[in-house]
Amino acid sequence: MMVVMEEGATEEQIARVVERVEEVGATAHISRGEVVTVIGAIGDREKLTALPLEAFEGVERVLPILKPYKLVSREFQAADTVLEVRGRKIGGDHFALIAGPCSVETAEQVARAARAVRDAGGTMMRGGAFKPRTSPYAFQGLGRDGLEMLAAAREETGLPVVTELIDPRDLELMLDFVDVIQIGARNMQNFQLLSEVGKAGVPVLLKRGPSATVEELLMAAEYVVKEGNRQVILCERGIRTFEPSTRNTLDISAVPVIKLLSHLPVVVDPSHATGRVDLVLPLSLAAVAVGADGLIVETHPDPQVALCDGPQSLPTSSFAEYAEKVADLVAWTGKSLG
Amino acid sequence: MMVVMEEGATEEQIARVVERVEEVGATAHISRGEVVTVIGAIGDREKLTALPLEAFEGVERVLPILKPYKLVSREFQAADTVLEVRGRKIGGDHFALIAGPCSVETAEQVARAARAVRDAGGTMMRGGAFKPRTSPYAFQGLGRDGLEMLAAAREETGLPVVTELIDPRDLELMLDFVDVIQIGARNMQNFQLLSEVGKAGVPVLLKRGPSATVEELLMAAEYVVKEGNRQVILCERGIRTFEPSTRNTLDISAVPVIKLLSHLPVVVDPSHATGRVDLVLPLSLAAVAVGADGLIVETHPDPQVALCDGPQSLPTSSFAEYAEKVADLVAWTGKSLG
Amino acid sequence: MMVVMEEGATEEQIARVVERVEEVGATAHISRGEVVTVIGAIGDREKLTALPLEAFEGVERVLPILKPYKLVSREFQAADTVLEVRGRKIGGDHFALIAGPCSVETAEQVARAARAVRDAGGTMMRGGAFKPRTSPYAFQGLGRDGLEMLAAAREETGLPVVTELIDPRDLELMLDFVDVIQIGARNMQNFQLLSEVGKAGVPVLLKRGPSATVEELLMAAEYVVKEGNRQVILCERGIRTFEPSTRNTLDISAVPVIKLLSHLPVVVDPSHATGRVDLVLPLSLAAVAVGADGLIVETHPDPQVALCDGPQSLPTSSFAEYAEKVADLVAWTGKSLG
Amino acid sequence: MMVVMEEGATEEQIARVVERVEEVGATAHISRGEVVTVIGAIGDREKLTALPLEAFEGVERVLPILKPYKLVSREFQAADTVLEVRGRKIGGDHFALIAGPCSVETAEQVARAARAVRDAGGTMMRGGAFKPRTSPYAFQGLGRDGLEMLAAAREETGLPVVTELIDPRDLELMLDFVDVIQIGARNMQNFQLLSEVGKAGVPVLLKRGPSATVEELLMAAEYVVKEGNRQVILCERGIRTFEPSTRNTLDISAVPVIKLLSHLPVVVDPSHATGRVDLVLPLSLAAVAVGADGLIVETHPDPQVALCDGPQSLPTSSFAEYAEKVADLVAWTGKSLG
Repeated sequence: MMVVMEEGATEEQIARVVERVEEVGATAHISRGEVVTVIGAIGDREKLTALPLEAFEGVERVLPILKPYKLVSREFQAADTVLEVRGRKIGGDHFALIAGPCSVETAEQVARAARAVRDAGGTMMRGGAFKPRTSPYAFQGLGRDGLEMLAAAREETGLPVVTELIDPRDLELMLDFVDVIQIGARNMQNFQLLSEVGKAGVPVLLKRGPSATVEELLMAAEYVVKEGNRQVILCERGIRTFEPSTRNTLDISAVPVIKLLSHLPVVVDPSHATGRVDLVLPLSLAAVAVGADGLIVETHPDPQVALCDGPQSLPTSSFAEYAEKVADLVAWTGKSLG
Repeated sequence: MMVVMEEGATEEQIARVVERVEEVGATAHISRGEVVTVIGAIGDREKLTALPLEAFEGVERVLPILKPYKLVSREFQAADTVLEVRGRKIGGDHFALIAGPCSVETAEQVARAARAVRDAGGTMMRGGAFKPRTSPYAFQGLGRDGLEMLAAAREETGLPVVTELIDPRDLELMLDFVDVIQIGARNMQNFQLLSEVGKAGVPVLLKRGPSATVEELLMAAEYVVKEGNRQVILCERGIRTFEPSTRNTLDISAVPVIKLLSHLPVVVDPSHATGRVDLVLPLSLAAVAVGADGLIVETHPDPQVALCDGPQSLPTSSFAEYAEKVADLVAWTGKSLG
Repeated sequence: MMVVMEEGATEEQIARVVERVEEVGATAHISRGEVVTVIGAIGDREKLTALPLEAFEGVERVLPILKPYKLVSREFQAADTVLEVRGRKIGGDHFALIAGPCSVETAEQVARAARAVRDAGGTMMRGGAFKPRTSPYAFQGLGRDGLEMLAAAREETGLPVVTELIDPRDLELMLDFVDVIQIGARNMQNFQLLSEVGKAGVPVLLKRGPSATVEELLMAAEYVVKEGNRQVILCERGIRTFEPSTRNTLDISAVPVIKLLSHLPVVVDPSHATGRVDLVLPLSLAAVAVGADGLIVETHPDPQVALCDGPQSLPTSSFAEYAEKVADLVAWTGKSLG
Repeated sequence: MMVVMEEGATEEQIARVVERVEEVGATAHISRGEVVTVIGAIGDREKLTALPLEAFEGVERVLPILKPYKLVSREFQAADTVLEVRGRKIGGDHFALIAGPCSVETAEQVARAARAVRDAGGTMMRGGAFKPRTSPYAFQGLGRDGLEMLAAAREETGLPVVTELIDPRDLELMLDFVDVIQIGARNMQNFQLLSEVGKAGVPVLLKRGPSATVEELLMAAEYVVKEGNRQVILCERGIRTFEPSTRNTLDISAVPVIKLLSHLPVVVDPSHATGRVDLVLPLSLAAVAVGADGLIVETHPDPQVALCDGPQSLPTSSFAEYAEKVADLVAWTGKSLG
């Protein structure tokens, strides 16, 4: 940690910072420049970052040097983490194509979607039974009934199921029916939820919050891994910016940035990133080309009657064509589906 | 709702939109311009907004006309909502000055802060017992012990207590010790939490998420009020932007915008908005001048040893001077403290 | 244009809006909903958008329906615009690979870069002689000498030259030495500059400003095309967001969005978007896959001594390897270089 | 400057950085932590910041320590800069109330606005003769005729005139008619324009760009001051964010941040920040309370026929009431108008 003193900071102010740094067992190195003095503090990172040194007189800024996460970092584990769920893999050379409706509406709807995904070569299915909705008047999901429909579709197709958890009290129920627990963008910093899925040891798909930095996403993942659960898939799904032509702005650079910083697999969700079905294919190809480990997209047998996210859902009738192009580019990159 | 058709949309595409609108019992008005056709849909707003009309062929955009919230709106209730908590009021002509440490650390620390707040004319105290922290390695709060310390300080000073709830399973416990439940910025769209505090009927201080629009904040409040609980205080605490000189960017305009749209009281949190103690006073004065109903600020007996948010906490020794200036400007606006 | 009246707007207020709309020769259609009234105004778009209807009493919002640009739109010209510069094409099936140093430093440096670009199959070269720099103390470019060095490198390699214009008074000079005039991100809304290059009839590469919407970029291009110059290449180079891991956030979605809205070619600048050489290749591949018409990247014989943008410049020694991967993916998309 | 090496950086890589730092006459201090090594470079700031050290192998990040501007900083001049224009002062204890129409439309319109401003106690008038407009089809201003109308209004009322310059070729003409040259938000980084007004030695009102950081604003001001012209007024007018309820987001914190960093006066433009006349008064009061040195607002005799910015202009008929409230709060802060 580097403590930058103000111009004109006194010797006494410098001494007080040094003293506080040494009190927590760290060592302090003083660099005196012509204009400002910088104090380097070397020691236990948790103890140092907990010090409120910015509150000290004469201190202008405190610059952290070490990364605030550990277990999810490339430095901690150089090799890519590869998850395996019901025989399907993700990470390393394995690309996951995860697809399905925004929300489970009927057994028939979810079964049709699951069949279309399986037939087109998709590797997992998605579908929401508990839906966090901005408006309290919007459809909130079928709950337990939805989970049962997902399990039935899994039974038929063999596809592992990804579904969102929004309340820690539903976790146990969910574990009976699904394979991968999604933590949604709004809950990326719901630390209770993160700890619970960490303890449960279940595969987790963790979505980046719309205003979360990459570093914050990695720290959220650290909450899960810290409980002993390394089965975490990260998901870039767009950040909030001023640009109105897409619902969010897909931060495509986040994929290679995360791959450099972390060993965890990263997938891209072009459906939520844009909110527009006409952009799903080009952005899916961009995600494959940039090095993502998978895609999670919305597909629905009839988007015009969907209870949620119709405007961004691929019709299942065109899913095979979509999947073929994606698979072809995946092959170009040297990876393979599932 | 206005459905804007693409240039060159066919009569058949127009007819299909009209048909779908009429299926949900609404009426459709067609306006044919020289370039594009617009279909106005008039009817039940929930049914209309649930229609995925953007997914229809020939549709370019769907423009909502009605506001997506009801119970929190000025149209629903013209008069300002005034809350009363242990004899202290907020809303209308009543300005709340809420202060205290970021987190409860010791009984002595919280008691000293509470006394300083009371002596300076503050109207409520704040302090966290359950702390949501970006890093899993940071101090997470004292939990139940912290709640007891808050209750003891309340006992001594008579100040009502505001504290944050982060897990729905802790709500009952909390109701024994505190007066106002804070829903933090990260949990603004934790809809389970919102529904629970709505059902509990307890006063709620709801913080705006760092990437939430004003409209989304009002919809989050609608989740609480919909359960029959009108005791909601909204809080502007800064949004996430590209500007690095403050931790967040205080969206001061949100205060008058919300006052125009809603009857609920609005407070400002300059401590979290900026992360800098040297900006707390000027931004507090700005908040008073712009028409806020209160302030929530951090104060600590010794910021240099604080376990969290030291750099943005006013020392309790200077709190009286701060509160005096704030109170003086509150009087200028024609309101009065508490 | 749709004028949404406030709830409770009076008949008189509605009449006044209608009257004003009709004064400019447009027709007004009134839709009365249960809650609000909406007035559709149909007529000349310039006259209507110039009306300050939001300033009228009883008006809540004005929603534009028509796009504010014309000549650059797909509706105006369905076929892709293809530019040809010294025999190199861009647009349609022609992909441009434009590369070179941030700034021209020496004749030798620019010549070495140009040869590397040509040898690797690049189709145009870039290099700055007039540099807009955030700091007044930074290197501001070689000016006319730099233009001469660029022209010499062009003479040797046959590559057309792209360079930035920052002052309208330098345009004539520049036309003697270069082929494509770049309008930089900071000058995207320097309307004098846009009009001048429009009148000059020279090919223009127009970069999106870091906080400009796609619509604003298209309106800036409209300034050029309105002067009779259709030779405009648009460039996405990152927008400003809260994410610090890249210098800007590449808005990859902007590429397919623009391709839907406009007939003009779109290139991507991964060097400025990220500021990091280690992200240039993955983002270049993403740009190709998403459907861009070209790339503009920085390459320098020795980035460690570059006077500007060293950290984001590919060494020319690795440019051939980079270009090979890009070309391979370009072929996959069915396009061809230059 | 601090150079943070990657974990696992080799001794050779460290040595190469040290060598390069020493080549420009600076000294390098090496701090070896348990995890990473940090190299502190002390010497001439321009030479050091020009080094592309991020391009060196083994370097993770380069952290600047010194501020990149000098002449505009508080460290360079501790006392507030006070400008005087035709007897009106701004800065220190002098608060400027600058008002007038967005654009000059007729002699009568600008004269009526100027009289209203003078009568209400305003200290300067504003009005645009050259208008930068997003759309090429919008009204672009009256040019020289507009300048003459402004000069006539100045003649009648004695109020100094603030007007925008958008083309360096118009500067000389403008100096004959006006007192303060405004550099608009879109031109904040038009460095040619900044240098020209710097050389002209005329008072400058420099608006912050919608995506410029405070630091970039100060560096733009440095371009002016570097030419020997210290008469610079900075203006906060809103930044671009995701929040749609206001046109821009007024960054009210920027005012006290700038006052801490720089000696230059800072004014606030609530009209452009919000685009809404109903927010102009509350935000003006916030600006006064937070410590701004002035306000620049739009007022028009008849906003419903204004050729630009009607929706955000105060009618001149209500300007006196507005100015009275502002003046009252200015007095509360201990400053005085003009």
